Amino acid sequence: MRNKVAAFGEVMMRLQVPNYKKLEQSRTLDYLFSGTGVNILSAVSRYGHGTELLTKLPDNNLGDAALSYIRSLGVGTSHVLRGEEYLGIYFLENGFGVRGTSVTYTNRKDSSFCRARKEEYEYDTLLEGVTLIHFCGISLAVTPNVRETVLMLAREAKKRNITVCFDCNYRPKLWDSYEQAKALYEEMLELADICLMTEKDAIHILGMETAEIEREKQLEDLLPQVAATYNIHTIAGTMRETISTTVQKLTGFIVQDGAIAYSQSHTFDVFDRIGGGDGYTSGIIHGYMMQWPKEKIAEFSIASAILAHTTYGDSPVASLREVEAFMNGAFQELER
Amino acid sequence: MRNKVAAFGEVMMRLQVPNYKKLEQSRTLDYLFSGTGVNILSAVSRYGHGTELLTKLPDNNLGDAALSYIRSLGVGTSHVLRGEEYLGIYFLENGFGVRGTSVTYTNRKDSSFCRARKEEYEYDTLLEGVTLIHFCGISLAVTPNVRETVLMLAREAKKRNITVCFDCNYRPKLWDSYEQAKALYEEMLELADICLMTEKDAIHILGMETAEIEREKQLEDLLPQVAATYNIHTIAGTMRETISTTVQKLTGFIVQDGAIAYSQSHTFDVFDRIGGGDGYTSGIIHGYMMQWPKEKIAEFSIASAILAHTTYGDSPVASLREVEAFMNGAFQELER
Amino acid sequence: MRNKVAAFGEVMMRLQVPNYKKLEQSRTLDYLFSGTGVNILSAVSRYGHGTELLTKLPDNNLGDAALSYIRSLGVGTSHVLRGEEYLGIYFLENGFGVRGTSVTYTNRKDSSFCRARKEEYEYDTLLEGVTLIHFCGISLAVTPNVRETVLMLAREAKKRNITVCFDCNYRPKLWDSYEQAKALYEEMLELADICLMTEKDAIHILGMETAEIEREKQLEDLLPQVAATYNIHTIAGTMRETISTTVQKLTGFIVQDGAIAYSQSHTFDVFDRIGGGDGYTSGIIHGYMMQWPKEKIAEFSIASAILAHTTYGDSPVASLREVEAFMNGAFQELER
Amino acid sequence: MRNKVAAFGEVMMRLQVPNYKKLEQSRTLDYLFSGTGVNILSAVSRYGHGTELLTKLPDNNLGDAALSYIRSLGVGTSHVLRGEEYLGIYFLENGFGVRGTSVTYTNRKDSSFCRARKEEYEYDTLLEGVTLIHFCGISLAVTPNVRETVLMLAREAKKRNITVCFDCNYRPKLWDSYEQAKALYEEMLELADICLMTEKDAIHILGMETAEIEREKQLEDLLPQVAATYNIHTIAGTMRETISTTVQKLTGFIVQDGAIAYSQSHTFDVFDRIGGGDGYTSGIIHGYMMQWPKEKIAEFSIASAILAHTTYGDSPVASLREVEAFMNGAFQELER
Amino acid sequence: MRNKVAAFGEVMMRLQVPNYKKLEQSRTLDYLFSGTGVNILSAVSRYGHGTELLTKLPDNNLGDAALSYIRSLGVGTSHVLRGEEYLGIYFLENGFGVRGTSVTYTNRKDSSFCRARKEEYEYDTLLEGVTLIHFCGISLAVTPNVRETVLMLAREAKKRNITVCFDCNYRPKLWDSYEQAKALYEEMLELADICLMTEKDAIHILGMETAEIEREKQLEDLLPQVAATYNIHTIAGTMRETISTTVQKLTGFIVQDGAIAYSQSHTFDVFDRIGGGDGYTSGIIHGYMMQWPKEKIAEFSIASAILAHTTYGDSPVASLREVEAFMNGAFQELER
Amino acid sequence: MRNKVAAFGEVMMRLQVPNYKKLEQSRTLDYLFSGTGVNILSAVSRYGHGTELLTKLPDNNLGDAALSYIRSLGVGTSHVLRGEEYLGIYFLENGFGVRGTSVTYTNRKDSSFCRARKEEYEYDTLLEGVTLIHFCGISLAVTPNVRETVLMLAREAKKRNITVCFDCNYRPKLWDSYEQAKALYEEMLELADICLMTEKDAIHILGMETAEIEREKQLEDLLPQVAATYNIHTIAGTMRETISTTVQKLTGFIVQDGAIAYSQSHTFDVFDRIGGGDGYTSGIIHGYMMQWPKEKIAEFSIASAILAHTTYGDSPVASLREVEAFMNGAFQELER
Repeated sequence: MRNKVAAFGEVMMRLQVPNYKKLEQSRTLDYLFSGTGVNILSAVSRYGHGTELLTKLPDNNLGDAALSYIRSLGVGTSHVLRGEEYLGIYFLENGFGVRGTSVTYTNRKDSSFCRARKEEYEYDTLLEGVTLIHFCGISLAVTPNVRETVLMLAREAKKRNITVCFDCNYRPKLWDSYEQAKALYEEMLELADICLMTEKDAIHILGMETAEIEREKQLEDLLPQVAATYNIHTIAGTMRETISTTVQKLTGFIVQDGAIAYSQSHTFDVFDRIGGGDGYTSGIIHGYMMQWPKEKIAEFSIASAILAHTTYGDSPVASLREVEAFMNGAFQELER
Repeated sequence: MRNKVAAFGEVMMRLQVPNYKKLEQSRTLDYLFSGTGVNILSAVSRYGHGTELLTKLPDNNLGDAALSYIRSLGVGTSHVLRGEEYLGIYFLENGFGVRGTSVTYTNRKDSSFCRARKEEYEYDTLLEGVTLIHFCGISLAVTPNVRETVLMLAREAKKRNITVCFDCNYRPKLWDSYEQAKALYEEMLELADICLMTEKDAIHILGMETAEIEREKQLEDLLPQVAATYNIHTIAGTMRETISTTVQKLTGFIVQDGAIAYSQSHTFDVFDRIGGGDGYTSGIIHGYMMQWPKEKIAEFSIASAILAHTTYGDSPVASLREVEAFMNGAFQELER
Repeated sequence: MRNKVAAFGEVMMRLQVPNYKKLEQSRTLDYLFSGTGVNILSAVSRYGHGTELLTKLPDNNLGDAALSYIRSLGVGTSHVLRGEEYLGIYFLENGFGVRGTSVTYTNRKDSSFCRARKEEYEYDTLLEGVTLIHFCGISLAVTPNVRETVLMLAREAKKRNITVCFDCNYRPKLWDSYEQAKALYEEMLELADICLMTEKDAIHILGMETAEIEREKQLEDLLPQVAATYNIHTIAGTMRETISTTVQKLTGFIVQDGAIAYSQSHTFDVFDRIGGGDGYTSGIIHGYMMQWPKEKIAEFSIASAILAHTTYGDSPVASLREVEAFMNGAFQELER
Repeated sequence: MRNKVAAFGEVMMRLQVPNYKKLEQSRTLDYLFSGTGVNILSAVSRYGHGTELLTKLPDNNLGDAALSYIRSLGVGTSHVLRGEEYLGIYFLENGFGVRGTSVTYTNRKDSSFCRARKEEYEYDTLLEGVTLIHFCGISLAVTPNVRETVLMLAREAKKRNITVCFDCNYRPKLWDSYEQAKALYEEMLELADICLMTEKDAIHILGMETAEIEREKQLEDLLPQVAATYNIHTIAGTMRETISTTVQKLTGFIVQDGAIAYSQSHTFDVFDRIGGGDGYTSGIIHGYMMQWPKEKIAEFSIASAILAHTTYGDSPVASLREVEAFMNGAFQELER
Repeated sequence: MRNKVAAFGEVMMRLQVPNYKKLEQSRTLDYLFSGTGVNILSAVSRYGHGTELLTKLPDNNLGDAALSYIRSLGVGTSHVLRGEEYLGIYFLENGFGVRGTSVTYTNRKDSSFCRARKEEYEYDTLLEGVTLIHFCGISLAVTPNVRETVLMLAREAKKRNITVCFDCNYRPKLWDSYEQAKALYEEMLELADICLMTEKDAIHILGMETAEIEREKQLEDLLPQVAATYNIHTIAGTMRETISTTVQKLTGFIVQDGAIAYSQSHTFDVFDRIGGGDGYTSGIIHGYMMQWPKEKIAEFSIASAILAHTTYGDSPVASLREVEAFMNGAFQELER
Repeated sequence: MRNKVAAFGEVMMRLQVPNYKKLEQSRTLDYLFSGTGVNILSAVSRYGHGTELLTKLPDNNLGDAALSYIRSLGVGTSHVLRGEEYLGIYFLENGFGVRGTSVTYTNRKDSSFCRARKEEYEYDTLLEGVTLIHFCGISLAVTPNVRETVLMLAREAKKRNITVCFDCNYRPKLWDSYEQAKALYEEMLELADICLMTEKDAIHILGMETAEIEREKQLEDLLPQVAATYNIHTIAGTMRETISTTVQKLTGFIVQDGAIAYSQSHTFDVFDRIGGGDGYTSGIIHGYMMQWPKEKIAEFSIASAILAHTTYGDSPVASLREVEAFMNGAFQELER
């Protein structure tokens, strides 16, 4: 029987200014609907797993459009709640070369998702048949309602032996301070089997210290400690080096059983920057469920991440065949 | 010296689904920035008057884009306030034939405009040189801050002998009840020299009664009473008959000195429904300032309204020459 | 428990020349995926029923795109078969006013659907939980494989007391002669509970005769006979009058228990002509399942058909609320 | 052997504001290349005749683009001259309903065409094998060079018994006065076998007088006189009634042997107004070459004119089959 | 008198997903018409030669659109056959960076071209005045009809001393095995004066062997043998090195009189990958007809190939001036 | 009180072929309005200065559209003259990689700007409150009217102690010879406080000689002499190295008080090549007005230039914050 991956998270509308223009220069926008949960599920459905999105959408034509889009990605939407009026929106101005990309959020506090009470999520139904469930640190930040729902669902998942995957994803603008976040993150780490994080999270959120200066050394010092402390099976993340908005370098790492494995480093052209990290997480989830050795997981995940940078949209859409071909160095510039 | 028309009002972003699609069917949106104040000023600047928009825009790229767009309409923006983060947004799905047009608002309560305190508007500066100032009933509805600003500016304008134009524009969804609105509307009517309203406003908001049943009779009964009671020089409005989403019939009326004048009735093809009413108001303002007889004002205003239905966008962009040609029956199907 | 409607039918790609251009004048095309089955299910899913499409799509990126699109319509795709390489394609050049609309098909005989053998469809699984199943006469015409599958599924459905709905949809270009079609149509009529047809089908396919000359009289003479002969609960269809490519008149009829009911006649603007008939069928299916009286079914179905002409695409996307509002004369030209 | 129709005339670039916007509202333009000669030849090539355009295009990428476009219409370009730098350009703002369409020209006096000397046109080569040659009154107006070329080519054509077709097409903005035009027009009428004109041309350009008041009566009085005076075999034209920018009424007439025939009058939806008249002329040329009776020519020509209003672009692109179907009342709203 | 180049080959419709999207992500496609023959003729017409395409197009609006497009490229279409219904179509999904480009074909076996019998091509007429004729190995693969036509036309050309150019262009998916192809290729090599091929064709199709391992050595060993065996004046080809989908390296080679010349190697940005090889062939044909030394032919051809990668579409559209400037290192980044 | 920068110069319409196509390949164009003066003012308005454009626009819808666009950039248009009919237009075909960008002008001699007499510019009004005025060498070249206006305004500005900035911008195609230009340039240099020029201008226009061979040495030899001779406070310019159409290298220099400062050299991706030089000039003007040391001016100006290459359009639109961040190496690839 195939795995079923659930993800809890907000769906937002992305309004992108086309052709590298600034918002003041255009008269049209491209749009789609995304979110960390949507992105993860879009990828893992392509890797052969069942999916189910746990969220709440407004009960109007925006919600209808979001639902239609998410379905078009192949994501399961049987349990999506509907109600209230608003949906979070963000504007994307793509940078070019030495000019950076800019994201502007509208007010999301009053979205259907952010206002949904935890009681609305019937966990017995939602978690039925689920193999793995994914949460994102952003959900801890937005509103008390959402935060409580995350904790409730994570606890209930744990009880049912569902694998819990937690992506730290600390967004400074959404928090008053690291202190505010710490206890919440600690609880999630306690519940997590898989955790996406870097040495920065260990230092800033968890308050850990290291004598090391280089990034790799810090990673290797701190993350095994985190894994041990919170009993986390797999910790993973990426190191990104920015040559320009359109050329970047990425290396993946993964910590299991006190040891670390690195993927190859790739320098590559970026087409759509948003959601690249979710491409990596999707690879980790797939590799974990396939019970691959950590070295193979790292290579698959970095391939998944990099291809996610080469396709349109936040949500990864590369096929399993494409990711495997890239991982195996079997890239074909023209297939016909 | 030319007149200077000021308008106080919110600027919103309009996101229109192109080609008569529903939001779930498209991947692109057309956008522009509008609002009752913007629309009025766009028109009257084409009719030869100076203009100044009184509003507050967010201090980010959305605000920049809004400002750029408003300037492109020829509207004066010297006094526009900047600050905070959000801008109201609405989605427009155009209907076709027997299918209606649908407008969906996002949360506007937290927009820069709706959160601006009345103290931020330095009325001495803002009203300098202003001949006429326009307010819209929507502003009375949105937030206490905005409501207080409207009253403050209207009172200060009155003190300075600036003509006050008030468009009742009662939007049921924004009010709890007519009672809630009544006192505020009454104060605005006391201050107004020009008022856009219909018999429905008299009945529902002011609680007036009439024995008449036909619309015209009700108008003729009630509106001269309103003018007398509140000492309003000019009351004007339109009667709309809907054949379909794309074919409509419009008649204008105007009450002055206890008498009523009607414009001709026109049946016409509608290209862009939103902002049609503001086209009429713009004509009234222009005619008032030109001191035309009410019959001519009615004809000019209805021409202004109808041409506003034939051009893209909420804000009227027909030229004075085009409006006059239509008013005079000198329509030319092809000019080269 | 809600109803589940299944539909068996081919999915085609529609390539539409935008802006009323001819194919030689454009450089871009709009595309979508449709088919009688897809269209019916798109509508009835909006009317609140569960849906499942029975078809076969190629195992490549065209098939992926088709599947993604169909999902975006809200149609169930759990049982869609994948395999082979090709998908039927048609080009659509929209007419304008006195210029007609033109549809050009590519070769569909080798599509995955047309080559699928009946053994590939595991009827026990496919029909589980199905309340009503829809077939289209086009499927009888295309290839022997498809024809046999239709008959097999219809027979198996009948055995299971699933309501069988058959749309005659006789396309002259796909048949050598009416004689070739007759036996197949007769078998489907024997199996059908609901049948979409007109007096022309009775005369040409079934070879029936009537002394009447007017269309209505012919209908009233022949269709009750058909219903009686083949024991069909509901026979329904439309009468179309073409004013121009963009203005048409439509009346629906429905025969039950030997009596006929007509809907009101509506003259209306056409935005997208293709799939209008499927809008009507969807209404009949909904009304049948709701067990409404035939008069109400006729009014609902004609509303469903007309709104399908006002929205983009072959597949009806008007909401239940919109159809009911139109049926009740509660059309609102602008809703905000 | 098939006929070969030549046309002498300027090629211009048309820059059209899309979606009924005004130039100040858009950021994109649609473009094509046209001209009376191009339009006539586009149509008659579809009616089965050989074509050759006589013109001069700039020797740069604008000229290349124009040539490519004209070829795509199926028009012969073997003799097109190349040289100099400029091409006439016009901007088209489509009107909608009661708002008129506006055409704005750029400076065309310095175009390659307008500067070409008559010596550049080697008439022996250009006229070889030509059956009919078309000229337009606009060419008489633009520059002395062009005017002289028109007269030279018309005279040389006459010498060779090539049918000369002259479209009066008097554009007031291009002439100082009717007097300036009169002698030139008279010479062209002397040379012409077919002339497109109306009673207004007879009155204003030729200075003729009539006691009649109604348009039809004036036509019937004056045009047979013109035909007799200048020995013109066929005089033809249209009467246009404008309901709105998008709905118009058209009737064709044709004078031969002192008698007049009228086509049916059609009221129809207009998609692209520009070039409608050239659609009529193309029909006249086709009918003349087919040696049809004048009644049939009028019906074919009005069908040709009306379908030209329903297709994109200045140049008629309806097929012979479409025109004949419309002429025969065999319009099919949907062909598949 | 100028040369006239003929090319025999299929015309296909290319449907390209815009903006680097996958087919499932877009709602619009860009389209054009191309084919090896079309591409070659597009280029050589720009290099100053007469052209004539030998093919068959369907007798419907697809065929009309294809013909219009081909004409717009400046390609001669006087002898294009029309008939039957279908046209081959392929979908193009552009890759980006490390993601490859994907081409998906529809069924082409039933295209008008693939079904045309050799008797339909009247070689006496078609070959009149032709200097050089081009064939492509794809035509040998598609259907027996096409294969026979290729051989017939090549033999007839040979008889008339027309230069025969054959591009091996072996597409594995279109053949069962190399053995199937061998005899056909051998016959074409016997007839060819110019042949586009690489060492891989010699090894795989002709079954030749070499002790060399490096590509250059293999080329230098095998291709002179091929030239000698089959008496081929010029053998040419390219070596492509793929840095990514968007950056590639290309080197051209040419074998004449037993000696080989290489062009410079260029690393360059790729805009449109399809048709790049045809750009090279076009250069070879031009250089051959200009009777240039092989070194100059190689440099011109590689310049022609590389510029073909920088322009939109399969068919090369760079001007002779641009190719020469690049060949001479006189590239100008901005010309005004 | 803030500075007010005026610029005198022509406004042109730019018609850009989208998606790197050639003009013959597209059916749509993107357009905007620009000019050296517009570009400078667009940038300096973003750097916090008041702006006023001195020009003349046609009194028709082209002029309206130009005015609307310029206002949307935030440029002051209070003194723009209106009259006559024409506007200069240029076509832009973007190059890609090794293919160059091409600009084609239409006839501009008859534009409203080029025909405006110097008397139309009321310098007392125009120069009121102006701190700095900018002129461009192109204006010296176009027509005698414009040339005289430049000299008049520069002299009047000098009289009023307004800083005069002159950009040599010698365009060979617009002049018969360097001799023709010399006296005019010398007069402008006499009047200028800031001058944009390179060693090439010194050698060719001013006829200066140097024994140096390297560019930097020539600069360092000649430009301090120019500054001394004509008493110019600041001379500045850039050195451009072209890797390809889309990758370039730029270094800025500035001469003050006999010394030269160079900016860092940057290699960067080019998105929109046109107007890059004006980005540099804008930086020089800002730095001059801020009274920064020349090293800082050079760094700011090169940042301003480079960011101008990364944004759409001729007119720089990067914000002051973005330019400063780039100057300070604080580039952020993704800001959210």
